[in-house]
Order: sequence, then C-alpha cells, then structure tokens
Amino acid sequence: MSDLRQQAQDCKQASRRLAWLATADKDRILTRLAAQLRAQTDPLLAANRRDCEAGALAGLSDALLDRLRLDEQRIEGMAQGCEQVARLTDPVGREIAWTRPNGLLIRKVRVPLGVLCIIYEARPNVTVESACLAIKSGNGALLRGSRSALNSNQVLVKIIQECLTEAGLPAQAIAGVADLSHESITTLGRMNGLIDLMIPRGGAELIKRVVETSTVPVLETGVGVCHLFVEASADLAMAVPVILNSKCSRPAVCNSLETLLLDETVAFETIQGLEPEIKNKVRVQGCPRTLALLPWAAPATPENWDTESMDMILNVKVVNGLDEALEHIRRHSTGHTEAILTRDLESARRFQREVDACAVNVNASTRFTDGGEFGFGAEIGISTQKMHARGPVGLDELTTYKYWVEGQGQIR
Amino acid sequence: MSDLRQQAQDCKQASRRLAWLATADKDRILTRLAAQLRAQTDPLLAANRRDCEAGALAGLSDALLDRLRLDEQRIEGMAQGCEQVARLTDPVGREIAWTRPNGLLIRKVRVPLGVLCIIYEARPNVTVESACLAIKSGNGALLRGSRSALNSNQVLVKIIQECLTEAGLPAQAIAGVADLSHESITTLGRMNGLIDLMIPRGGAELIKRVVETSTVPVLETGVGVCHLFVEASADLAMAVPVILNSKCSRPAVCNSLETLLLDETVAFETIQGLEPEIKNKVRVQGCPRTLALLPWAAPATPENWDTESMDMILNVKVVNGLDEALEHIRRHSTGHTEAILTRDLESARRFQREVDACAVNVNASTRFTDGGEFGFGAEIGISTQKMHARGPVGLDELTTYKYWVEGQGQIR
Repeated sequence: MSDLRQQAQDCKQASRRLAWLATADKDRILTRLAAQLRAQTDPLLAANRRDCEAGALAGLSDALLDRLRLDEQRIEGMAQGCEQVARLTDPVGREIAWTRPNGLLIRKVRVPLGVLCIIYEARPNVTVESACLAIKSGNGALLRGSRSALNSNQVLVKIIQECLTEAGLPAQAIAGVADLSHESITTLGRMNGLIDLMIPRGGAELIKRVVETSTVPVLETGVGVCHLFVEASADLAMAVPVILNSKCSRPAVCNSLETLLLDETVAFETIQGLEPEIKNKVRVQGCPRTLALLPWAAPATPENWDTESMDMILNVKVVNGLDEALEHIRRHSTGHTEAILTRDLESARRFQREVDACAVNVNASTRFTDGGEFGFGAEIGISTQKMHARGPVGLDELTTYKYWVEGQGQIR
Repeated sequence: MSDLRQQAQDCKQASRRLAWLATADKDRILTRLAAQLRAQTDPLLAANRRDCEAGALAGLSDALLDRLRLDEQRIEGMAQGCEQVARLTDPVGREIAWTRPNGLLIRKVRVPLGVLCIIYEARPNVTVESACLAIKSGNGALLRGSRSALNSNQVLVKIIQECLTEAGLPAQAIAGVADLSHESITTLGRMNGLIDLMIPRGGAELIKRVVETSTVPVLETGVGVCHLFVEASADLAMAVPVILNSKCSRPAVCNSLETLLLDETVAFETIQGLEPEIKNKVRVQGCPRTLALLPWAAPATPENWDTESMDMILNVKVVNGLDEALEHIRRHSTGHTEAILTRDLESARRFQREVDACAVNVNASTRFTDGGEFGFGAEIGISTQKMHARGPVGLDELTTYKYWVEGQGQIR
C-alpha cells in the first residue's frame, strides 16, 4: 500500500475516536493548542524563516512571500483563532426527533463527515485553522499544504499532534500529507471510502484541478466575480461608499467587487461621485457608454466580465434597467455574492429571487459574505455550489446527519 | 446546438417561472394532474399496451413486464400520489433570519435547486412521481425514462405539460428527454450550469454509470446491503418477526435485509426459531458456523457479503460479539440501513454512534427507511451519500438555500 493510502487509512481510523469526543475535551485540545503555539513561537519562526529564505531564492513574488511569512503577531492571531473555535457551539449530536404513529422514534442527529482533505496554498495559518475546525466538528483531516510552506507546516502539525496525543487521542487524526507532488492531489481525490470531502482552499486553478480530478465530493469554494447594480431608484448617497468598500477594502479576496452595473438614469451622477475617489487608484474597464462618461477608462474586453481580478480593477457597464442587469449577472455570475442598491421594494424582491448566488445583498457591501460577518465564527471557505452547503462553510456545514430509528420490535 | 442541450436550456429557463410560483398555484396543477390522469385512462392504457407488447416481443422478463404494466388501479395510484404531494408542506421560501450588531438582516431562505435530471428505468409511475416532486419543490425536470416505456411516458409527459400550459406556465419546465441513447446519460451528466442535480433511480448498474460519468452533482440513491445484528442481550421473541419482515416482506427493495449477523450466544436459538419460517422459501448463504447449525444452507462466498440480492436470499454469519459485528458492517455496509436487536443500552449506543449509515435502527425492521414511514410523504429515493441529503429524499432535500442580506448602506 502506498504511504498516502496508509496515511488516509490511519486518519480514517483515528477520526472515529474524534467523532464522539465530548465538547469539553475538544475545547481543551484547542485551548492547549493555542498555548502551545504561543510557547513554541521560536522554533516556529525558525522553521518559517527557512521557508521564506527558500522562497526568496526560488523567486516567489513579494505578495506570496508575505502570505508565507509568520511573525509573533500572526502566531498570536493563530492562537486566538484556536480559542475562538473553542468558544463556538459544537454541532455534533444536535438532533431533532419525532415519534411516528406506530411508536417508532425517529432521531435526526448531526454527525461528523469523517475525514476532510484540505488542499491549500502558501499561508501556514490555514494549517491551524483547518485543524481547529476539523477537531471541533469531530472530523479527521488530511492537510496538504504547499511545498513552499513545508517547514512551517511540519512544525505546526507536530504541535497539533502533540496536543492530540496529550489528550489520549491518536496523532494521525490530523495528519500532514508528506507527498507534495502534483499527483498526490489526484490520488487523494479518488480515495472514496477513506476521504469524505475534498476542500481546496486557494486560487481558481487549484479549485478547478481538484473538481476535475476527484471522485470524492468536493466543496467548491471561492471564485467570486461579484456584481453590484445601482438601480434607478437607489439612494445615491450610499452608492460611492458601498462601491468603494466593495472594491477597494480588500481587492484580493473572493467577496470583493469585480463589476459595477449602473442604471443609465443614474450612471452619470454615480460616476461623477466615484471618479475622484478611484482615479489613479483603480483601473476601470468600461463598456462604450462608460467610456463616454469616463474617458480615462480602458475598453472592457469580453474576458474582463468573467475574470476575478483579485486586484484594483473594476469593470463598469451601463445598463438599461433591472432586466438587463439580471441578464448580465445570469451570464457572468460565479454564484458568490451579487448586490443591488435600490429603494424600490419590487426591484429588491425580483433581484433577491431571480439572482442565483449564495448571497444576494440589498443595500449592503459585497464584502459581508464571510463566516465572521454572518455570525458563524470561523469558516473554511465560501461555498459557491448549491449542494450540501452554500455560502460560508462553518462547523455546521462540516457535519452531516444520520437517522437513529428506535423501536420495540416494530415491523412494517 | 444539439436538441438535448436545447431541451435543457428551455427547461432551465422555464424552471425560473416555477421557482417562486405560489404554493396554491402549484397545488392546483397537481390536483388537476390527478384529474387528468383519471380522465385520460384510456389513451394511457392504450399506449402502455403498445409498450408491453413490444416488451414481450423483445423478451423482457416477467418481472420487468410487471413493472412496466399499467392498469386502472395503478393509474388511480398515480393520481392519488399527485394529490398526496399537493397536501405536503411547500419548503420554498421557508427561512430563518437574524440581525447582526451592525444592523444587517441575514435571511437564510430555502430555494429550489433549479433543474433536476431524473434517469430511470421501466416503471412509468416514476414519470408522474418525479414530475410532482419537481413541481412542488419549484424545480424544472428533465425526465429520461427507458425506451421500453416510451409510449407510456410520452402520454404521461403530454398530460403533465397540458396541466402546466393550462396554468399559464411553459410546458418545457417538465420535459421528457427524447434522446434515449446510452450516450445521452453522459451528455446530460456534463451539462453543468443547465442541470443542477442528476438523480438516477434504478439498479446499481445505472447508478454507477451516472456517478462515474457525471460532472453535475449526483444524488446517489438506493444500493442497500443492509445488516441486522442480533446482539447477545436481544429479546429473542422479537428476533424472528423482525428478521422475517426485514427479509421477506419485499425482498426487491433497497431497505430489505441481506445479511443477518448472530451473536454466538444466541445463534442456536435464533436459527431454531427462524428455520421453520424460511425453509424452502429463503436461500441461506452461511458462514461455516451457520452451516453447522443449518445444514441445508449454502456456504457463503466472499462476494455474497457485498451483494444486494433483491431476492429471497439471506446471508447469515455467526459473530463473536458487538466488535466483530461492527467490523463486518464497516467492511460491507453500503451506508443504507443497519439494525441491531438488543436490550443493552451501551450496545445500542455504540451501534448507533459507530455505524456509518443513513439509518441505524435499534429494535426495528430495516424496512422502515422510507419517506412515507419517516413521515415525509413522497420521496424520490434514499440517499446513501453523506453530502447534501442522507436517507429519504423528499421535498426539503430537493431544495437548497441562499442568503438574502439586507442593509441600509452598511460597509465593512
């Protein structure tokens, strides 16, 4: 048997021990993990330094090096993350139950999924965050980080496993995948029966590869070509701040704005208000009518409308009313977050009903689609699929349910 | 564009009209459908007769011909099925909502999935049942029945579409797939963006083919290698009736019993009670210890433990306690229904927690895993997967949710 398959089997077996661990025991492990991250800051920083040096030599971009780098503040952030997950409500064992006329008691009980396989890129904090969510939801986890964070992740997994062992649990319940070859992603994605859910956390390329090669179910997260439509009746005083917040507050995340749709009756006034805030700061790619209002904008190419820029780039299109806006969104939405600014009840209602996305916002920034902002606490990503989980994926969404049917010898 | 793709596109577009139809309007369509099935019994029987004659000429087995055949009673059954779905609670629009500290209102709202593609075999009543569940849950449906039921299905789809048209809805919301080639299953399964869920309803072969070739999510239903474990403390008075009910009441369905596991301390007594009831009626395939107790049984082959017989065949194995029973189930379960007979609380608890199946029964027949028996009303199948829906798939499970986020210009 390959090492990878053996690891998955060990993880599956170990996950059964996690599945029904009492909440207090799980929380104790998470609190202990926080303390150990703080206590082991020095070896962690040393390992991370080796990764960063190797990354610099290998020519990683400054942005990637920044994502890779740990410092005391970021380690403290990871520790606080563990403590935050410890405070969240445990979904496992929550049930609804009813009794049938024949006396059968039907209990629908939340249970862990089993083993999660998380495939991620350079940020080492994803290792800790994923492990915490897996532990609290009673799942085992196979963590496959990137080669560039190898040393950091090894130390982190060692600390996590020490906390499990101290609590009398098998270390392999949370395992770092040693095989970091490209092929290992495909191999893991075909381990039906051992792995219950693949969770790619990273760019569109990574997600696409996992979706296309896996036979294990995949939680598709993240790609967000988000739209904001300023409808004819919109309160224009809210337009500029909401547009700026949606686009500029953190352009490299999935809930940031890509395309601004302007009703033709308010396009001139909105662009007038927006221009001084974005000139020399945001690259605008516009439709012909936008270019007439904003001569320094670049003409939008057909690809622009389908691209998640992850950058200070905004597509702008002037549309002829709600129907054209809905049609544009239907064609270009990735099912993440779509927003409308309007004062008209019927327009709000139609937009909410007809737009097929995990979050449909009325008079609010697109940036709110987030586990923390929704009040779920930590999340493992934003699901843009319709099956199982949609929107922020927190502890609840990392569980499934089963039916416990209890009788006294009933037959049918 | 191929005809099949055009059909899917028309269905997708039409499904948007169904999505937010008022419950009363949907129920009126279903009630009208019931009336029309009764009114058009004659043309329906005539079409079905052509199918049955062609089937007999083609050498279909008696069992298949029986599944294919309609009579007045079966048509009345279909009509009553429509009326039953009309009485079920509509899941669409049900919501939970909460307000965040910044004043944002977060509404989590049940919405239809979009377009269901149902692939099924000879029984024409599946056409009506699937259409009713799709309509009530606000989904469009592409119905791909088998060639052997072609004439019956054409008449049924025509009746369904007339009811939609009468209600002012586009007929294509419920469409019969005209292309019945094997390849059409693969083509449909790759129509991501047009079809939201593939639902194969039929034998293991069909399900496997759809799972392996589809990139659209698949609702995996049905295959049930169900176990019943008679634990050492079991009330043996309940053993024989529960075993007989689980195995013999309807052996060709997925929740029927395949393998009986007997604790060694109660094996002799259980088999003594069982033997007169099953001799010359049920083929027993036993482990060596079973053969010592039941000399007329056949020796079980390794494949027997993993086979859903759909017939009066029972595998029997004597085990050394709960651990061996759990281990056997872990190896051979298809995640459908597993049952234990016990009077011991801790054994019941361990069995419920450790067995990974959609239904885990204590002191009850395996046959209860069914939408009707659970109180859900009609169902489209029993999901044996963990993602999205597990167990009986009724109206609720044919929906997803989205978040409506409502603000007054909030930014983050």
